[in-house]
Amino acid sequence: MRENKLKKIWKSGGTVYCGWLIGDSSYSAEIIANENFDAVVVDMQHGLFGFKEAVEMLQAISTKAPVPLARTQWNEPSPIMRLLDAGAWGIVCPLISTADECEQFIRATRYPPEGERSFGPMRAMLYGGEDYYKKANDTIVTIAMIETAEALDNLDGIMSIKGLDAIFIGPSDLSIALGHEPSLDPKHKEVLAQIERIRKVAVAHGVVPGIHCADGKVARKWRSQGFRFLPLAADSYYLSAGAKAMVAEARKR
Amino acid sequence: MRENKLKKIWKSGGTVYCGWLIGDSSYSAEIIANENFDAVVVDMQHGLFGFKEAVEMLQAISTKAPVPLARTQWNEPSPIMRLLDAGAWGIVCPLISTADECEQFIRATRYPPEGERSFGPMRAMLYGGEDYYKKANDTIVTIAMIETAEALDNLDGIMSIKGLDAIFIGPSDLSIALGHEPSLDPKHKEVLAQIERIRKVAVAHGVVPGIHCADGKVARKWRSQGFRFLPLAADSYYLSAGAKAMVAEARKR
Amino acid sequence: MRENKLKKIWKSGGTVYCGWLIGDSSYSAEIIANENFDAVVVDMQHGLFGFKEAVEMLQAISTKAPVPLARTQWNEPSPIMRLLDAGAWGIVCPLISTADECEQFIRATRYPPEGERSFGPMRAMLYGGEDYYKKANDTIVTIAMIETAEALDNLDGIMSIKGLDAIFIGPSDLSIALGHEPSLDPKHKEVLAQIERIRKVAVAHGVVPGIHCADGKVARKWRSQGFRFLPLAADSYYLSAGAKAMVAEARKR
Amino acid sequence: MRENKLKKIWKSGGTVYCGWLIGDSSYSAEIIANENFDAVVVDMQHGLFGFKEAVEMLQAISTKAPVPLARTQWNEPSPIMRLLDAGAWGIVCPLISTADECEQFIRATRYPPEGERSFGPMRAMLYGGEDYYKKANDTIVTIAMIETAEALDNLDGIMSIKGLDAIFIGPSDLSIALGHEPSLDPKHKEVLAQIERIRKVAVAHGVVPGIHCADGKVARKWRSQGFRFLPLAADSYYLSAGAKAMVAEARKR
Amino acid sequence: MRENKLKKIWKSGGTVYCGWLIGDSSYSAEIIANENFDAVVVDMQHGLFGFKEAVEMLQAISTKAPVPLARTQWNEPSPIMRLLDAGAWGIVCPLISTADECEQFIRATRYPPEGERSFGPMRAMLYGGEDYYKKANDTIVTIAMIETAEALDNLDGIMSIKGLDAIFIGPSDLSIALGHEPSLDPKHKEVLAQIERIRKVAVAHGVVPGIHCADGKVARKWRSQGFRFLPLAADSYYLSAGAKAMVAEARKR
Amino acid sequence: MRENKLKKIWKSGGTVYCGWLIGDSSYSAEIIANENFDAVVVDMQHGLFGFKEAVEMLQAISTKAPVPLARTQWNEPSPIMRLLDAGAWGIVCPLISTADECEQFIRATRYPPEGERSFGPMRAMLYGGEDYYKKANDTIVTIAMIETAEALDNLDGIMSIKGLDAIFIGPSDLSIALGHEPSLDPKHKEVLAQIERIRKVAVAHGVVPGIHCADGKVARKWRSQGFRFLPLAADSYYLSAGAKAMVAEARKR
Repeated sequence: MRENKLKKIWKSGGTVYCGWLIGDSSYSAEIIANENFDAVVVDMQHGLFGFKEAVEMLQAISTKAPVPLARTQWNEPSPIMRLLDAGAWGIVCPLISTADECEQFIRATRYPPEGERSFGPMRAMLYGGEDYYKKANDTIVTIAMIETAEALDNLDGIMSIKGLDAIFIGPSDLSIALGHEPSLDPKHKEVLAQIERIRKVAVAHGVVPGIHCADGKVARKWRSQGFRFLPLAADSYYLSAGAKAMVAEARKR
Repeated sequence: MRENKLKKIWKSGGTVYCGWLIGDSSYSAEIIANENFDAVVVDMQHGLFGFKEAVEMLQAISTKAPVPLARTQWNEPSPIMRLLDAGAWGIVCPLISTADECEQFIRATRYPPEGERSFGPMRAMLYGGEDYYKKANDTIVTIAMIETAEALDNLDGIMSIKGLDAIFIGPSDLSIALGHEPSLDPKHKEVLAQIERIRKVAVAHGVVPGIHCADGKVARKWRSQGFRFLPLAADSYYLSAGAKAMVAEARKR
Repeated sequence: MRENKLKKIWKSGGTVYCGWLIGDSSYSAEIIANENFDAVVVDMQHGLFGFKEAVEMLQAISTKAPVPLARTQWNEPSPIMRLLDAGAWGIVCPLISTADECEQFIRATRYPPEGERSFGPMRAMLYGGEDYYKKANDTIVTIAMIETAEALDNLDGIMSIKGLDAIFIGPSDLSIALGHEPSLDPKHKEVLAQIERIRKVAVAHGVVPGIHCADGKVARKWRSQGFRFLPLAADSYYLSAGAKAMVAEARKR
Repeated sequence: MRENKLKKIWKSGGTVYCGWLIGDSSYSAEIIANENFDAVVVDMQHGLFGFKEAVEMLQAISTKAPVPLARTQWNEPSPIMRLLDAGAWGIVCPLISTADECEQFIRATRYPPEGERSFGPMRAMLYGGEDYYKKANDTIVTIAMIETAEALDNLDGIMSIKGLDAIFIGPSDLSIALGHEPSLDPKHKEVLAQIERIRKVAVAHGVVPGIHCADGKVARKWRSQGFRFLPLAADSYYLSAGAKAMVAEARKR
Repeated sequence: MRENKLKKIWKSGGTVYCGWLIGDSSYSAEIIANENFDAVVVDMQHGLFGFKEAVEMLQAISTKAPVPLARTQWNEPSPIMRLLDAGAWGIVCPLISTADECEQFIRATRYPPEGERSFGPMRAMLYGGEDYYKKANDTIVTIAMIETAEALDNLDGIMSIKGLDAIFIGPSDLSIALGHEPSLDPKHKEVLAQIERIRKVAVAHGVVPGIHCADGKVARKWRSQGFRFLPLAADSYYLSAGAKAMVAEARKR
Repeated sequence: MRENKLKKIWKSGGTVYCGWLIGDSSYSAEIIANENFDAVVVDMQHGLFGFKEAVEMLQAISTKAPVPLARTQWNEPSPIMRLLDAGAWGIVCPLISTADECEQFIRATRYPPEGERSFGPMRAMLYGGEDYYKKANDTIVTIAMIETAEALDNLDGIMSIKGLDAIFIGPSDLSIALGHEPSLDPKHKEVLAQIERIRKVAVAHGVVPGIHCADGKVARKWRSQGFRFLPLAADSYYLSAGAKAMVAEARKR
């Protein structure tokens, strides 16, 4: 089975830089897969596409080196299993608030007896090889999002769940949870303090800490603080930022 | 009928800044339509989508102010008429090399007796209003691409064709036609000389000169030289440039 | 943020006439958005399309004045939140039978602390503006369907839930729930009595009463009875009724 | 091979009533195929979809009795042959102006030596049977549109072409060709005179005369005048007419 | 309403041979519907498509004789009801482990009072007729999958649920549940013993026993053992097996 | 730029075994790309899909080793150039009957001055690398189909055109052209004689001879006769053959 490079990077102490796809285009996915990312996430939660488009985007990512990941639309077994069948080499799960929720998430990604995943990796075997079944439980990475008020009370429990590879902070939802406006680059002390607390708990449990980054500069800040899973904004940002800058420059007098 | 803002801008001596869509996504189209462009081009020549996606992209552009345009895949009546039926308020036609070709192009955009367009503006009437038939011939803008060696011998003839609103230089194909490598920002003297010659012939015939721009800075250069139809790169560039810059910044040590 | 015209109409005592989309076509959506409706519902429950098509239909509706709404396929947070992210300015939720279910529905449409909506309004901000987060909780309308036997025992509880703007009777399911055949224009006394009872409870709680209407005549009947949210049949009815009448007329001897 | 009911109806002196599809929906196609039409046309000329959607619409029509037809986007061999491969049981060809054009059209629909059709009826054999090759030339119907000024000078030549089953008048384009506004129900004397002249020439050559009808009443008028191929408006009309009438009725005070 | 041929076959003691669709193609669906199957399953659990594609595949199957079935992605009311609205004449439900789960599944397929299905059979009425509501509860077939360890403890309870027509063993998941590697043709004694036990319990309860078959030979083995619902592999197997054999033969020296 | 393995194989005297795609599925494309083919052809002539699906299929093929090729729908510059922009590494062109037609075909695949290809390889550069422009003319393979009566009179002329890499016999169309029924495995002497004559002319001109093969056995026959470009049937054959065999075996008594 095709190995999961993220595991290697993390084991060696490295950092994973990750592209992010909100838009409904396999061509955009292929463009992003040609950039210098370690992984690319197909986002079913806030992305504007359905499962078929997710499959096509996973195909497009598979033309190049980055590891194909997916964010499930919800912590439910069915969408998680379908994304894995479609060849996602890891799942980002939003809104994990308790240890039980985290365990349910992990179990959806594992064949019995480690979990309840149903067998039918119809595209995953094309991407990964015929020994997929034997190695999937050890290859698929799991990334739980920490972004609710409730999660802050359950950090130890959540991060104790066996099989959890990384946690991933959603700064916008976390900010809202703490009573502030959403921001991909939060500045409020309370938010920053919680982010650091989450990171420390993760590290203490041997879980890789990650956070969504507004841009490259912000990513470097978080990296220097010890975060090692760093998705960068999303294709919609790359696209509108690029267009906005270009037309503003063009219109200058 | 909904007026064509491009005609107004050009009549008042202004410049049209234009977004460009290569990718297959109505969401990308809507993002670009929210930026500060006067028009957005759905590109059927080098774009990676079919007619149905073009229709959806024209719908997405129609949610906002920019004028929806389309580049036909070829100088043939059928794709031109279909794009107009779908609500394009103007057509960019590639590879116009002779006066006859230019006339054929213009006639495909006009109802008789000015041309041979067949009646059935099924989406255009939704976008533009029920009096579409009466005003379409005076509203639709026509933009002929100058980018072949043969065209350079026929500039006067091409630009004399009645109904031609603008010409649009494809710098990459023009560079190749002159024996150089393709570039959206050509530097070779011979190419620059021809670009300026084309512009002058256009102005002499009351035709708006335009050119594809590698970025905003290049656009300003051309504007100061007198070009007034300035498409900026394409969504694929905005996207990859944005991603490339962000991940490079993030990876800096 | 773009205001929600439905709130205005209802505040002023007016009635909302609403188009309805079952079919899988953004072109049909645009046609309906050009008719004289106050709102148009993209129906994920009984409609024959997936999420991507819903997004495209919401784009098509956004080219014109009617307010884009969506019926979620089920009272679950994930599909509700995705439809809101995609730019629905209100949600119709089927099969609300208890106060708890109603509260769960409302909370899925609200950012904390009023609810649990996750932040990522990727298309909603394009349609509505950059201040979307600040105003969304006050702008999005919520419409709970009353159509089960259980709901009839819980009307007061359901309609007491804070944030509920309107209720919407599904006459077919309600008829079945009461032991009768489904009908968009029910005639059975018991059904009519329950419909009136529901309406009265709604009015008593300051909730706008609505009901699905078989046609325009039926809509007027309900309006005169005090209903103020009046979806009219669906695109599949408009289409087949139009075709059926035309071919019958044509075949007459 | 599945027979072509249109041939039978016409041979017996009967009239063909025909549905028409402009929209991009296989569900709409199936709805229309459930109405009382003898045939349904998938319109690639003014319709808002591409070839893949045409295939899906032909599949949807094939669930029921009406004969699946297609209007090619242009009188070119490639789109005609592809529509036949996809299971169209007849082709409507727009803008036939000369006998040569008519012959070119017919030849695109016939295997050698009657024409130049290339062999590969990949869906047609599923719909029609394994003996498709042997019977296709005798089964496929051909319908040439008469709608240009030039065609009026060439009626005898056009209708003399062997293999032409029917002609079909496009009243809007014909009106424009004669210097009048487009109308699906033309009233101008000159237009009416030409329509009758076309019909007479068709009958004289044993070709079935047809005309696009604004509605059922208009269809009856033409039938009584001797027209026997009667497409009725289009799905977009059925849909908007149905919606318009319903909402107008509902809003009445 | 169109009858359900599966009921007839099973009542007469016959066996149902069933095609299976994992791929995202309505053309593949139509090809399979032209083969000698009694039914064809559109698989939403391990298939690589979304709801819209499922609708198109159901349309394609409806052009021919086989009964259209669907496997729901999960035992949840919403996807089950949507597949029925789209014209599935029966539902395969994965991972039924308890009597309660089985009852919940059956109730999602039944209108009240037998269940909680919501009314809106928008395509089902096109496929089946206008009396759909009256006969649906008696026409739709229900097929529960037995494939978990927990189910093995609850066979009697599961198969006692009223309305269950058939059970269907997933040999791969069942093998995993019993601690073995997944196989569509399991050889392990323990697995074979459990398969036979499940079959016997089914027969004792008047429930038709079924099992997924690796190929035709395996199907015959199971048939001779008394299984009467026999899906054969899947389109992805037919396709890759066909290609693999052909290219291997071609390359032989 | 990514090299073209076909050139290497042919230069070394080897034979190219080729998969063929008629169906509209990127998943099928990926399955076929995982089999032991040297190349896979996306067929726009008799295939049941449009340009967008072709792009997705080319992406899917690009996940694995086989060289992505496409058959253009017609010998016209626009579809040929679009397929090359989308990343086809070679073009099969149907119905080449004269040297002029062959030259026109080759020129559509070449940047000036060797041809007239317009610059915009938007996906081709992702697949092949940034030096695409410099190497494309030497990398793209060209394959002309010989299948008409007229071509038989022009073999020398056709095969003398510079830049032609291979010819490809369509046995069905060639059989029809010679007055026989279409067959992928023609037996008629006259047809076999012409096939051998075509092969000899090709070899004499240094052009690789190819022919469409009904199956692997037929492919071996042609290979032993000297053919070195051997497409095998098509996905629709693999699929229906696989299903047909399996269900026949299953039903045996």
